[in-house]
Amino acid sequence: MSTGFFDGISKVTYEGPESSNPLAYRHYNPDEVVMGKRMEDHLRFAVAYWHSFAWEGGDPFGGQTFERPWYPQDDMGRARIKADVAFEMFDILNVPFFCWHDADLRPEQGNFADNLATLEEITDYLGQMMETSKTKLLWGTANMFSHRRWMSGASTNPDPDVFAFAAATVKGCLDATHKLGGQNYVLWGGREGYETLLNTDLGQELDHMGRFLSMVVDYKHKIGFKGAILVEPKPQEPSKHQYDYDAATCIGFLRKYGLEGEVKLNLEQGHAILAGHSFEHEIAVAAAEGMLGSIDMNRNDYQSGWDTDQFPNNVPEVAVAYYHILKAGGLGLGGTNFDAKLRRQSLDAEDLIAGHVGGMDICARGLKAAAAMLEDGGLEDALKERYSGWKTSSAKDLLNSDLASIQAKVLSEGINPAPKSGRQEILENYVNRFV
Amino acid sequence: MSTGFFDGISKVTYEGPESSNPLAYRHYNPDEVVMGKRMEDHLRFAVAYWHSFAWEGGDPFGGQTFERPWYPQDDMGRARIKADVAFEMFDILNVPFFCWHDADLRPEQGNFADNLATLEEITDYLGQMMETSKTKLLWGTANMFSHRRWMSGASTNPDPDVFAFAAATVKGCLDATHKLGGQNYVLWGGREGYETLLNTDLGQELDHMGRFLSMVVDYKHKIGFKGAILVEPKPQEPSKHQYDYDAATCIGFLRKYGLEGEVKLNLEQGHAILAGHSFEHEIAVAAAEGMLGSIDMNRNDYQSGWDTDQFPNNVPEVAVAYYHILKAGGLGLGGTNFDAKLRRQSLDAEDLIAGHVGGMDICARGLKAAAAMLEDGGLEDALKERYSGWKTSSAKDLLNSDLASIQAKVLSEGINPAPKSGRQEILENYVNRFV
Amino acid sequence: MSTGFFDGISKVTYEGPESSNPLAYRHYNPDEVVMGKRMEDHLRFAVAYWHSFAWEGGDPFGGQTFERPWYPQDDMGRARIKADVAFEMFDILNVPFFCWHDADLRPEQGNFADNLATLEEITDYLGQMMETSKTKLLWGTANMFSHRRWMSGASTNPDPDVFAFAAATVKGCLDATHKLGGQNYVLWGGREGYETLLNTDLGQELDHMGRFLSMVVDYKHKIGFKGAILVEPKPQEPSKHQYDYDAATCIGFLRKYGLEGEVKLNLEQGHAILAGHSFEHEIAVAAAEGMLGSIDMNRNDYQSGWDTDQFPNNVPEVAVAYYHILKAGGLGLGGTNFDAKLRRQSLDAEDLIAGHVGGMDICARGLKAAAAMLEDGGLEDALKERYSGWKTSSAKDLLNSDLASIQAKVLSEGINPAPKSGRQEILENYVNRFV
Amino acid sequence: MSTGFFDGISKVTYEGPESSNPLAYRHYNPDEVVMGKRMEDHLRFAVAYWHSFAWEGGDPFGGQTFERPWYPQDDMGRARIKADVAFEMFDILNVPFFCWHDADLRPEQGNFADNLATLEEITDYLGQMMETSKTKLLWGTANMFSHRRWMSGASTNPDPDVFAFAAATVKGCLDATHKLGGQNYVLWGGREGYETLLNTDLGQELDHMGRFLSMVVDYKHKIGFKGAILVEPKPQEPSKHQYDYDAATCIGFLRKYGLEGEVKLNLEQGHAILAGHSFEHEIAVAAAEGMLGSIDMNRNDYQSGWDTDQFPNNVPEVAVAYYHILKAGGLGLGGTNFDAKLRRQSLDAEDLIAGHVGGMDICARGLKAAAAMLEDGGLEDALKERYSGWKTSSAKDLLNSDLASIQAKVLSEGINPAPKSGRQEILENYVNRFV
Ligand SMILES: [Co+2]
Ligand SMILES: [Co+2]
Ligand SMILES: [Co+2]
Ligand SMILES: [Co+2]
Ligand SMILES: [Co+2]
Ligand SMILES: [Co+2]
Ligand SMILES: [Co+2]
Ligand SMILES: [Co+2]
Repeated sequence: MSTGFFDGISKVTYEGPESSNPLAYRHYNPDEVVMGKRMEDHLRFAVAYWHSFAWEGGDPFGGQTFERPWYPQDDMGRARIKADVAFEMFDILNVPFFCWHDADLRPEQGNFADNLATLEEITDYLGQMMETSKTKLLWGTANMFSHRRWMSGASTNPDPDVFAFAAATVKGCLDATHKLGGQNYVLWGGREGYETLLNTDLGQELDHMGRFLSMVVDYKHKIGFKGAILVEPKPQEPSKHQYDYDAATCIGFLRKYGLEGEVKLNLEQGHAILAGHSFEHEIAVAAAEGMLGSIDMNRNDYQSGWDTDQFPNNVPEVAVAYYHILKAGGLGLGGTNFDAKLRRQSLDAEDLIAGHVGGMDICARGLKAAAAMLEDGGLEDALKERYSGWKTSSAKDLLNSDLASIQAKVLSEGINPAPKSGRQEILENYVNRFV
Repeated sequence: MSTGFFDGISKVTYEGPESSNPLAYRHYNPDEVVMGKRMEDHLRFAVAYWHSFAWEGGDPFGGQTFERPWYPQDDMGRARIKADVAFEMFDILNVPFFCWHDADLRPEQGNFADNLATLEEITDYLGQMMETSKTKLLWGTANMFSHRRWMSGASTNPDPDVFAFAAATVKGCLDATHKLGGQNYVLWGGREGYETLLNTDLGQELDHMGRFLSMVVDYKHKIGFKGAILVEPKPQEPSKHQYDYDAATCIGFLRKYGLEGEVKLNLEQGHAILAGHSFEHEIAVAAAEGMLGSIDMNRNDYQSGWDTDQFPNNVPEVAVAYYHILKAGGLGLGGTNFDAKLRRQSLDAEDLIAGHVGGMDICARGLKAAAAMLEDGGLEDALKERYSGWKTSSAKDLLNSDLASIQAKVLSEGINPAPKSGRQEILENYVNRFV
Repeated sequence: MSTGFFDGISKVTYEGPESSNPLAYRHYNPDEVVMGKRMEDHLRFAVAYWHSFAWEGGDPFGGQTFERPWYPQDDMGRARIKADVAFEMFDILNVPFFCWHDADLRPEQGNFADNLATLEEITDYLGQMMETSKTKLLWGTANMFSHRRWMSGASTNPDPDVFAFAAATVKGCLDATHKLGGQNYVLWGGREGYETLLNTDLGQELDHMGRFLSMVVDYKHKIGFKGAILVEPKPQEPSKHQYDYDAATCIGFLRKYGLEGEVKLNLEQGHAILAGHSFEHEIAVAAAEGMLGSIDMNRNDYQSGWDTDQFPNNVPEVAVAYYHILKAGGLGLGGTNFDAKLRRQSLDAEDLIAGHVGGMDICARGLKAAAAMLEDGGLEDALKERYSGWKTSSAKDLLNSDLASIQAKVLSEGINPAPKSGRQEILENYVNRFV
Repeated sequence: MSTGFFDGISKVTYEGPESSNPLAYRHYNPDEVVMGKRMEDHLRFAVAYWHSFAWEGGDPFGGQTFERPWYPQDDMGRARIKADVAFEMFDILNVPFFCWHDADLRPEQGNFADNLATLEEITDYLGQMMETSKTKLLWGTANMFSHRRWMSGASTNPDPDVFAFAAATVKGCLDATHKLGGQNYVLWGGREGYETLLNTDLGQELDHMGRFLSMVVDYKHKIGFKGAILVEPKPQEPSKHQYDYDAATCIGFLRKYGLEGEVKLNLEQGHAILAGHSFEHEIAVAAAEGMLGSIDMNRNDYQSGWDTDQFPNNVPEVAVAYYHILKAGGLGLGGTNFDAKLRRQSLDAEDLIAGHVGGMDICARGLKAAAAMLEDGGLEDALKERYSGWKTSSAKDLLNSDLASIQAKVLSEGINPAPKSGRQEILENYVNRFV
């Protein structure tokens, strides 16, 4: 029985590029086969429960703009209405996955026991709905940044009681994720960082964060959770500095605490940009280490210095991102989550559908362009040619040599390399043939 | 015999804070004892040969503005005049150290054999001058970014011949540094990065860079060089992305290639800012890992997106940096290098002296303020108090526990932490009592 | 009768630089005479009602952290308690001024008539308290950005009804400001801008904003309000682009609509930084046009891309700002407002006092340093010398000449200028003698 | 007779989107009619002489990488070879326009008389080549930023002799532009700004700049030059602050000095980004004032804080820019200049051609998408609908009313506007149907 929230909006279907129906897929065709796999299985789209259903349209200078039947969000009854609407939207969009924080699903209760009990109650309710829905859980996570108890961090809090509360919370969320068949579990440490070094013992906090993450990994194995544990880099906001700054920083952290074989990354385009990187850079860094887990495909406005979490809308950028993903073997158990919120002025149910439809279509175009480039092979051929010198045995010997021997060789052979063009414009033009 | 370049400028001496002599130290008093050590021994100032003597005042939109007796810099004779002037300046400033790249000291020759021979010639000449000078070598380094052969990287070049040329070059520079009693050897990888991922195999390039650095470490041990090997982080410029992005990235890289016990960091304030960090952040990150090597105490303009390499001029900022350095045990064999250039319009010999005098005075004030804060103990006391919960045995047990046990404990004990003020403004006010 | 909120906190008094009392002024001594005027009369400090009393500690990733007796802020009775506490703080700090938005003072009522009636009620109450308080009103303003009705702008809204609601609101706020003897009236157009050009008619919106501001000026004259009308530049946030981007943009806008003689600027340090400028730049731009009105002396974190609104804490920066203010003749009817909020973790009443005390002390040090530089005259002398060429009659003739005559003169006289040093480092060192 | 520089490279022709020839136009088809006009006449492409022929591949950390037959550029004979090669490239690309600075065309001579004589000599030579070439002069300009005489500004220099030298130089360049039938004359004030406010009289410098520009306008009229005078905004680099910061700042400046009817803007995408704006923002600002003159269609890397001057490569971005240009009536006498340089590693003649071909194709795709959107009318219809309230007579009355009357009306009518969706995602999806 419909909640009526989406009244007048039909299921979104593929109508092809010529369609001018604003609520149709023009490029996302789930069953279309790209490089031997269905598009749905490549992209593994997920809706983020928080931005779509729990965020009320506030920003630092203004309050709620949206009006929804499940507001105010302080009641378990309305939490169920919210869930009903969410699954209606999953069905309208035909998305295979969704994601949640505990705090999105039901109101914060102010104490752990009630937080746990209500989480169990609402996830049981979700579980019932999932029995008749195609939409599965891509990942669950704990919101350990909104309530005031987390203001100085969760696992990195100066107060051990907060560490304990955090550990108890993650156990609850990981259990619930496992119960619902979640395919990954994510940790984003929005307050694991600092506002000022003046009151912060950075080394001790990092050690606690490392220990905490190890416990999460241990518990995952203990309960037989087969999904991946993912951390999500972001440089700052809400913290002045967040420890999981970017992919390279996270990887260094994981290696320090011996977790590089256990934990992967959930990369977000907007966070890449806030950290001073392109999204493809973050993907390439993770891929080079075999640590690419999943992506949040939401962009940041290039002129804004905060996390705007917008739906993607630039095919050339998205295409290059999927190019690196496909090169790395695809998303595996990960997916393409939209950690994207509507603009605060986009008040209507139709806007919520349109945001997702547009984002999914952009990704579909990007994926197809990326696949076409890989199949054409132009970039890979150019790369092979550029590094071909390293295939020779003398080059391999070089890597196994030492400074003194190399200097002697350079002197005796008069090695004096001549630069070769990097051909950047030609390669950029090549990409533009496909996007 | 004087070159005459500094005619009319006397040796700079300490005259105390009331002096209005623009070419006197008002705060830097080498023999003054701070926390049990002479200021000179704390700060270990170094002049950078390149910016002071080799940079001609050009920028991306304009050419040479300076006029110097040793221009044009294409001749070994004038390279000696440049060295003479440099040592005159070291003497005028009474600095204990200087630093160089090979390319600063003598003209690039266009081939390795001549590069090596002229480097030996000019460093022999420097060695002679050092016999009668108090000024020692803080570090040497190889310029592997200016000549066109390095345009696509040195150790990360797609062409193995460039890797070989780079290895040969570093051997030469490390030998010369060792010959001159250098206390460290630095690698800054300005072109170890990429302009576009489209033509770059990031994983292979990082492996080559790791291998290269290992060879440098091996060679250092082979020749008995006792100084530290340092890498200098910078996020970008000239590259779009530089692999040694920031302290955390470098540390992760070093750990991956097993070099975390062998290599430390040379941190620059301006590069911290370009990477989105405060300088004290970078110092704290390095210190927490025991990898603080040396510093380049030159600031970046906060409104400019490129490396402005200006002399420091903000005492509160410098004080917090030295606070973290003193907390970490000081600079050890490292020092305070000014990788700082005059503004392009500062044409005169007097400007060159004044830039250094001002920078040294700022550092001296910062050091004294930092020492006073440490001796007063207010920040450390506040830190101890804030983290005191972690001193209890129950907190220590927590770290050795597991998620399930912790959740049980949170439930049974009804743990529900209450936030405590972080007191940031009070701590900031405290600092302002000292700066 | 005290509300008890500040129990245990005494009036803050001047104790001199040696005091270690965290709640004493160490530099701000209201009656101390600087350049012939009392410090209080130079600085004209104001407390911002909103950040100090209405902001609850939320940020985009978390809710309320503060707990205050006047929460929840939905009741006129608690609005009076808030006012009582505010005046207690003004008294404790001994500040001469405060500032408000209508929405800070009493809860939004959801319709205009009740908004107006409750504003009159609460400002009458403030008026009563001001009879026995030394603290006067520096400026009032209307919050036309928080409620959802303003989401698409106030005077620039596509809906004329919002324009009308805005006009009615400003009339009410200007009347209330006038009633309370306010010395200025400020407009900050947080939502006068756009989220996307795709749905925006920029030209029409600017015309509406110009017309709106003209009405405000007309009404001011009609009611005999003698204070200045000020607009406050900010580049963005909450909008993607705000029309009042920076000082130069505002001045251009005012000139276009013929308001350059009627409206001045309220400049904020943090907004300068977000716009890519130093604070002294914005002051110098406004001063060069005679449009410097008042300042919001709250800084932005240099590594954060959003408006952090922190209390000032860097004397060298503040000193240069006051130097330009003093050169321009001082703040006149304007003042030094702290549009500054506590960090979200600074929960205690003591933090609120300490934030202001620290900020005021920093400003006092900055003012004294600026005055000392002006009295010493070193910077002005250097400026005079640098531009002395323009004092000659031939230089003045040049400005009244034309290209052809000038070219003829350059050819005939062989004019070939030689660069002179800009002496930037020497001037920076000079400033550091005073800060 | 060919110089041989482009040996092996044929004339670039339109081959259609399916072509995989890297040196063919796939989208730029000069004679194709778009909205009633030939593409060539819409886009009016221009090659920039400086980046293509005078820039040698240097950057702040490295020297020349390119090797060209006309190097070293210190000889009038080689200046002619450079011109020959330039016209060969114009012919290969089939571009209708080019642009130059005086300093690109021939070597700086060190004094004005010789600068003028050699400029006349080389522009006579260009004039001869133009007789048989289709390529016309879009604009000329004076390089008043590279030589050391300009280090402290041209028209804003503290030394009146530099002002005079600048005036004489612009006269020479404007004469030469006029002689060659140039359609515009551009001023970019790279050093019209400051490095530090400490040595700068900002108000006086702006007055001088205003006066200088008035002289240029007067001289244009005197000689009957029918082209437009354009200024090009850029926020900084090489200066710390450049007076022509962005479009709004320039427009405010022009209005102050009474030049708003005489001078228009040359807008560059990269400079928009450095100033914190999107390119379409700058275009919309200029268009709203009727001051859109011409564009430099070269992008900035979003992660670099300096002017990267890259060829455009993102169709969605370019399309929105041309959308605003077409809405404003097109480029008129202006054009699409590529103020774009090859990447420093792009050494080959083929790279130079490919950069332009790719950029031209991107622009052609963008133009066609923009035209399709305008013809479809979806965005304009949405805009009309959103602002339809302002078409009513009551809304028009509102703008002619006053605050008191409006407040009375709001009270009596109980005006209480209800927000309507801004539909941003829907509009963004709409655009993505066309790009
Ligand atoms: Co985000
Ligand atoms: Co995310
Ligand atoms: Co640097
Ligand atoms: Co450095
Ligand atoms: Co602010
Ligand atoms: Co403000
Ligand atoms: Co540019
Ligand atoms: Co340009």
